[in-house]
Amino acid sequence: MADALVFNPGSNSLKFEVVRLTDNQRFAGEATKRITAAIEEFGDEATLSVFDPSRPRQLAHSEKVKAPDMKAATDFALRWLKDQKVSADSLAFTAVRVVHGGVKYDGATRVTDEVLHDIEALEELAPLHNESSLQILGVLAQRLPDTPAYVTFDTAFHRTLPEEAWRYPIEREAADRHGIRKFGFHGLSHRFMVEQYARTVGKPLGEVSVVTLHLESGCSASAIVKGRSVDTTMGLTPLEGLMMGSRSGSIDPAIIPYLMHKEKQTVEEVMKLLNKRSGMLGIAGGTLDTRVLEKRDDEAARLALRMFSYRVRLAVGAYLAAVGDAQAVLFGGGIGEDSPWLRAGVCEGLRGWGLELDPALNRSTEGQVVVSTPASRLQAWAMPVEEGLQMAHECQLSIKNAGNS
Amino acid sequence: MADALVFNPGSNSLKFEVVRLTDNQRFAGEATKRITAAIEEFGDEATLSVFDPSRPRQLAHSEKVKAPDMKAATDFALRWLKDQKVSADSLAFTAVRVVHGGVKYDGATRVTDEVLHDIEALEELAPLHNESSLQILGVLAQRLPDTPAYVTFDTAFHRTLPEEAWRYPIEREAADRHGIRKFGFHGLSHRFMVEQYARTVGKPLGEVSVVTLHLESGCSASAIVKGRSVDTTMGLTPLEGLMMGSRSGSIDPAIIPYLMHKEKQTVEEVMKLLNKRSGMLGIAGGTLDTRVLEKRDDEAARLALRMFSYRVRLAVGAYLAAVGDAQAVLFGGGIGEDSPWLRAGVCEGLRGWGLELDPALNRSTEGQVVVSTPASRLQAWAMPVEEGLQMAHECQLSIKNAGNS
Repeated sequence: MADALVFNPGSNSLKFEVVRLTDNQRFAGEATKRITAAIEEFGDEATLSVFDPSRPRQLAHSEKVKAPDMKAATDFALRWLKDQKVSADSLAFTAVRVVHGGVKYDGATRVTDEVLHDIEALEELAPLHNESSLQILGVLAQRLPDTPAYVTFDTAFHRTLPEEAWRYPIEREAADRHGIRKFGFHGLSHRFMVEQYARTVGKPLGEVSVVTLHLESGCSASAIVKGRSVDTTMGLTPLEGLMMGSRSGSIDPAIIPYLMHKEKQTVEEVMKLLNKRSGMLGIAGGTLDTRVLEKRDDEAARLALRMFSYRVRLAVGAYLAAVGDAQAVLFGGGIGEDSPWLRAGVCEGLRGWGLELDPALNRSTEGQVVVSTPASRLQAWAMPVEEGLQMAHECQLSIKNAGNS
Repeated sequence: MADALVFNPGSNSLKFEVVRLTDNQRFAGEATKRITAAIEEFGDEATLSVFDPSRPRQLAHSEKVKAPDMKAATDFALRWLKDQKVSADSLAFTAVRVVHGGVKYDGATRVTDEVLHDIEALEELAPLHNESSLQILGVLAQRLPDTPAYVTFDTAFHRTLPEEAWRYPIEREAADRHGIRKFGFHGLSHRFMVEQYARTVGKPLGEVSVVTLHLESGCSASAIVKGRSVDTTMGLTPLEGLMMGSRSGSIDPAIIPYLMHKEKQTVEEVMKLLNKRSGMLGIAGGTLDTRVLEKRDDEAARLALRMFSYRVRLAVGAYLAAVGDAQAVLFGGGIGEDSPWLRAGVCEGLRGWGLELDPALNRSTEGQVVVSTPASRLQAWAMPVEEGLQMAHECQLSIKNAGNS
C-alpha cells in the first residue's frame, strides 16, 4: 500500500490528486483516490476546488486562492496538502503528466537531468504544454527533494502504432529530416479505458480490441487491437483529428494558405485561429462548453453539436474498420460520459456493425454504464476516465520493473 | 439518337470522346462510345492514343503529334476528328469538364458569357484546372461556333452535402467571409458509379445507398444516401482526403507551419511539396503509378501501397458509418478497378459490416465485377468509370429539362 501525489496540468489549470495504490494491483481502476482537487483559472480569479474523492464531480469545497501561474499553483497545492496532513514522508512518489514524450518514451519514467532535457527539447512540438510540466517538476525538486519524481507521457501509449498509421503521406526525406510523424496524445486516458474494459469484462488485455473516445475540450479517438494502440486521431500535434472545443481538428490543408492570402495574415495568426477560435467555439460562438451549448436553443449551437457528433461518428466508423473485430466503443472524457445525444448520434450510424443502443440506458449521464442492449453484437459503454489513477498505476509498474531488472 | 463530343482535360493531357446517346436514356451507361482518344504529355513528347471504343483500355493506334499545350491539343483533336468524319453537323453538342463550379452550379450548363466569367472567377480555388477548360472552350467557340457548348462540373454532384458535412469546424465568420467550405470533386465519377449500380441491380436511384471510391492519381471517396452525395473526402480543394499519387491528402494542419519553420520555406513551397512531391510518389520515390509499384520489390514501394490501402480502408469505414445502411462499396477509377490487393486490404476491415470478399472474383482486374460473395450482406464491386458517358448524359438531361420548362 502506497500513496502517490499526481499532478495533471491543463493550459490554465492544475489538477492534483492523492492516490492510494494497492501492492499488487493489475489495473489502474483498483487504486482509490484519497484527495482530488484542482486550481483553475490562474490569475485574479484563481479558484481551488476540492471534490469528494468517491464522487469525482461532487464539489466538496471551493475558495479563491492566490495562484497567478503554474509555479504558484504547485506551490499552493503543496502547502494546502500539508494542511491536509499529506507530506513528504507519507508519499511513495510524485508523478507529473507530460504531453509530449516524442519517440523515446514509451512509459512512466523516473525524472533525471536527461529526462528534463528531453522534455524541454520537445517543447517545440507541444508549445506551452511541456513547459508547464517542467515548472511543476521544478517546484517538486525544491520542496520535496527526497521524494522520487516520475513523469508519464500522453504519447507513450501510442508508441505501438504501425508505420502505415504513424507515417504521414508526405515526402519521406523531409518528414524524416525533421521527425515529422504521428505521435498521438491522451494516451493515459485511452489506456485507462481499454484496461478498465478488460478488467470489467474479465478478459486478458491481449484479448481486448476496442475503439476509445476521449472527448473533453481536447478530443481524440484511438483504435486498439489486443490492448495496443494501432491508430489515433491526434498527430504530430494535438491539432489533428476530431473537432474540439476551440481547435478545428483536421481540415483541408490548403485552407491555411487560402486564409493567409485572404485575411492577409501570417501563418502563426492562421494557426491561432485554428487552435483558439475554431471548433465548437468557432461555430457556436460564446462558449466551447457542450453543457452550455446543449441548453442553448439557437441554430449555431445546434449546428456545432451536430458537426461535433458527425465527426466523432466518422472517426468511430474509420477505426472500427481499422480494428476489424472490435468488441466495444468506449465513450470517455466529460462529453463522452455525459452526453446521450452524442452517443445516440454516433451509434445511429453503427447498426450495420451490430451496435444496438438501449435508449433508456443511454440516458445515463454519470458513471460507467453499458449503454447498448444485451443482444448488441458491438457494445457501447459510457466510461469515466481517471487519468490520475492511471498515472499512479503506471509509475508503480515502472518502479516494480526497475526493481525486477 | 444524337452524338456528343466531350472533352476531359487533365493536368497535362486531354481526353476526348464521341458519345452516341439514345433518345430517352435514363442512365449514362446506356450510351455508347464511338471514338475515344487522348493526347498526353503536351510538349515534345506529345502523343495521340486512340482506343478501341468497346474495350476502353485496348490501344488501337498511337502516334507522336504536335501539341505543346491545351489549346493546340484541342485544335489538333478537332482536325483529327474531321478526318474521322466527325464534324460540326454530326454533333448535337460539345461538353467540357470543369473542375470547380463553386456553390452555384449543380448540373450541366450551357456555356454563356456569365458561365465563362464564373469559371474564370473560380480559378483561384482550382489553380490551372479551370483555366484548362476555358482554353478548350475558347477553341470550340472559334472552330464550332454553331454547335451548342456545355460544361459539366466536378463539384456539382456534391451540392447536396448537409451543412454538418460541408462546413469546416473553423471560425464561422472567417469561413463565410471567404466562402471556405467543402466542395468536393470527381462528382461525375461518383455519380456515374451510383447510377450504374442502380441500373445494374434494377433499383430506383432513390433506394440506393453506397460508398463510392474514385482512385486514380487523384483519389476521393463519397458517401451516398438514396442516390445523393452526403459527404466526400476532397474539400475546398482537391488536396484534402485520401493519400493520392503525388498529393498528401489530409494531414495534421500544424505540419505546414512546422515545415515552413524547419525547411525555411514559404507557404507556397510547402504546398508544392504537399501537392507534387507527397502521396505515393513521396513515400515510394520514383513513380506514383501503382502498377509500377506493385511490381517493385522494395520496402518503400510496399510501404506506399500499404499506407494507401490503409487510408482507403479508414475512409470507407467512416462513410459506412455516415451512410448507416449502405448496400455496397464501389471500387472505381483505375486503381479501384485494377487492384485486387487494394480491395482485399480494404474489405479485410469490413467483415464486421457483413462484407465477405470472394478471393477468386476479387482477382478480376478489368470490367464491372461483383467481388463479394453472394451471401455477403454488404457488397463490393469493381467498377470501370466512364466520365465521358456521364458528361454527355448529364448535358442531354439538361437540354431536355430546358425544353420542358
